Amino acid sequence: MDFDREIYLDHAAATPLDARVREAMEPFLTEQFFNPSAPYAPAWETRHAFEGARADLAHAIGAKPAEIILTAGATESVNLAFSVLFGKLGSEDISQKWEIGVGGYFPKNGKLGSEDIFPQEDISPTTRNVHEVAHVVTTAIEHSAVLACAQAHPHTLVPVNHHGLVDPEAVRAAIQSQTVLISIGLANNEIGTVQPLRAISEVVQSVRQQRLMEGNTTPLYLHSDASQCAGQLDVNVSTLGVDMLTLNAAKIYGPKQVGLLWTARGVQLEPLVLGGGQERGLRSGTENVAGALGFARALQIAVDGRKDEAARLLALRKTLQHQLLEAFPEAVVSGHKKRCLPGLLHISFSGLDAERLVYLLENEGVYVATGAACAANKATRSHVLEAIGLPPEVADGSLRLTLGRLSTEENTARAAEIIIRVVRSEYERVSS
Amino acid sequence: MDFDREIYLDHAAATPLDARVREAMEPFLTEQFFNPSAPYAPAWETRHAFEGARADLAHAIGAKPAEIILTAGATESVNLAFSVLFGKLGSEDISQKWEIGVGGYFPKNGKLGSEDIFPQEDISPTTRNVHEVAHVVTTAIEHSAVLACAQAHPHTLVPVNHHGLVDPEAVRAAIQSQTVLISIGLANNEIGTVQPLRAISEVVQSVRQQRLMEGNTTPLYLHSDASQCAGQLDVNVSTLGVDMLTLNAAKIYGPKQVGLLWTARGVQLEPLVLGGGQERGLRSGTENVAGALGFARALQIAVDGRKDEAARLLALRKTLQHQLLEAFPEAVVSGHKKRCLPGLLHISFSGLDAERLVYLLENEGVYVATGAACAANKATRSHVLEAIGLPPEVADGSLRLTLGRLSTEENTARAAEIIIRVVRSEYERVSS
Repeated sequence: MDFDREIYLDHAAATPLDARVREAMEPFLTEQFFNPSAPYAPAWETRHAFEGARADLAHAIGAKPAEIILTAGATESVNLAFSVLFGKLGSEDISQKWEIGVGGYFPKNGKLGSEDIFPQEDISPTTRNVHEVAHVVTTAIEHSAVLACAQAHPHTLVPVNHHGLVDPEAVRAAIQSQTVLISIGLANNEIGTVQPLRAISEVVQSVRQQRLMEGNTTPLYLHSDASQCAGQLDVNVSTLGVDMLTLNAAKIYGPKQVGLLWTARGVQLEPLVLGGGQERGLRSGTENVAGALGFARALQIAVDGRKDEAARLLALRKTLQHQLLEAFPEAVVSGHKKRCLPGLLHISFSGLDAERLVYLLENEGVYVATGAACAANKATRSHVLEAIGLPPEVADGSLRLTLGRLSTEENTARAAEIIIRVVRSEYERVSS
Repeated sequence: MDFDREIYLDHAAATPLDARVREAMEPFLTEQFFNPSAPYAPAWETRHAFEGARADLAHAIGAKPAEIILTAGATESVNLAFSVLFGKLGSEDISQKWEIGVGGYFPKNGKLGSEDIFPQEDISPTTRNVHEVAHVVTTAIEHSAVLACAQAHPHTLVPVNHHGLVDPEAVRAAIQSQTVLISIGLANNEIGTVQPLRAISEVVQSVRQQRLMEGNTTPLYLHSDASQCAGQLDVNVSTLGVDMLTLNAAKIYGPKQVGLLWTARGVQLEPLVLGGGQERGLRSGTENVAGALGFARALQIAVDGRKDEAARLLALRKTLQHQLLEAFPEAVVSGHKKRCLPGLLHISFSGLDAERLVYLLENEGVYVATGAACAANKATRSHVLEAIGLPPEVADGSLRLTLGRLSTEENTARAAEIIIRVVRSEYERVSS
């Protein structure tokens, strides 16, 4: 992409790698290529750098290093959060039949490498049997990763109002006696509405209190996917009041397929990927050291620069919105006026075809989205717009414009002009 | 690491990024950073490049692009292969326990907490319930990823002989009527023994025939982790005769945490990670485009240069082995003489402490391993050496020396001198 000529308005889908992030990754792409589990000193240094990245990531969100699990992206992080719903065999069972050996659990008295027919009917502690009754509460406007995970379990989708806002009392009402997990994204990736997580966390607290009194020992966790947020919103875990938080490097000018799951102490996860036991046994596989270093640098930059960048993006977005609404007073802006991602503008041109708009804008070098890119090209109507009650003829003419570090006053103004010209000619075409 | 002064003899643990691989990744770390699922033309180009990488990966192993699933590393690929063992709840089961309510499946007679539930189509308790009787056959010397996965199911570990070789007839004997998966690494990552996969695949064929005649409809798949092999052995899937193959970029001078699973047509996998539906729904999450391009280039280079590089490494390894055995005739070389990874030398100095040797060699700038690095620093005795019957006092003095592209005649000869000097002084120390 020619960063001078072309205008990128899809920062919510992907962000370019920051030069400083690149620099942080560099040594681990070249001379420090060692396997961090290797036994010689240069590999220990690689391990040390990797653990330093973990500490930096933790620090950036007000957490402890041991609470961070590095994953291959946000989707995997969300899936790992949902592992609280997987059941284990009881620990008595395990200790009677199994013991820890090289690479995992082995049957007691079993001998490796001999005539080892292991007990046939025994299933090790790591199976993925699902709690039969564990229930999930989430919202109707979540990212496809959360929705797909929720749909694998009994679940309730809490509705949102027409601004896309979740009512904490609706969350309370959806919680059942067997609810184990509540997963609510901090900011919606399509319309940018920021949820009242703190208030929801207070609901969670009060339900826990109530369970305690009733003798219900079912754990209850609040998870949030904040992938869209670092760099624009506060992602400090204690401010948010969550038990688990998902973050993503790729959305904050870091490398792709690098993410993390933060969990408060005491949250019981089950691994999705078994093997060498890396990441406390929760994400086996040789570590992506360069990725972790890049992520740490990206998060640090995002958090440090958040206030200024959020204010800058908000100003750009307001101007853009103002210009577009002035040209098309009938256009519909979705999302919440105040509780919003600063850099996101969701605007609908009723009666137009958003896909045509994307194509026409692309011809002019302006790259915009019709919605979330993450659902792998599914040509279906947005579940988010349905959930906020946008009529189909409005929804079908929707653009998601997301500003970011590539946005300037100059290119945003230029984008506004081009969008106005293209939308105007489309309205002329359809009305003629 | 100073590539001129220091000598890296741990290519089986990690490999440096090849400059040509780096170059292939470059555009996708900079200007082509787009989300491949985004709707504008530059993102389509990114998608096109990504699918081109998949085609190149497929081509390199004699497969079709649609048969390749890109994963975040070999461990994840192995775990995905084991998903053939996951069952879904049968539809009868579901209807007995669950009913479709507003918002999804709910336990029968269960009560919802909220009236405002959104209808959601396409909801099913998919889930990772494990087939209760599905059985796995693997060997006693597999990588920890395979062992950990096998241990989550009823399984049989086929023993190996003292060269680390698996007898195809022992595999046949271990197969039960409910065996669904046989997973055997092409080459062992510790002693380098190359398994007779082709012969094992013939056993699998004949068992399938037999099942057909008996009316046993249980599927039977042969999976192989060939992560250590591309670049040294033939990894063409039809030559190998396998149904599933795991490969890893990080072991062939490509990026870390990038891998693939190849599956023959008809193999039924279940996703480990749910979400946007990328990789045919089997590995959701925004694609690691740069990683895939790097992997494709790395595999192409490895396959194209295999014959010459394998011959070169074999010659280097033979010379190294000869020099070490000449200095220490009592040293024990493990693995199979002919069926071996060309660049791997596993040698044991009975009575010495391998960890001290690693430390002393590291002081001289020579980096070697005591065994596989992948098991995340577990200071336990190798299960591979136990399985081949190496006595503890021999096993404890074992070094794994793995040659690769950083190895030259000059630095390998220098390494031999240093190892001989260090081992000699250690023998003097312990005998005095």
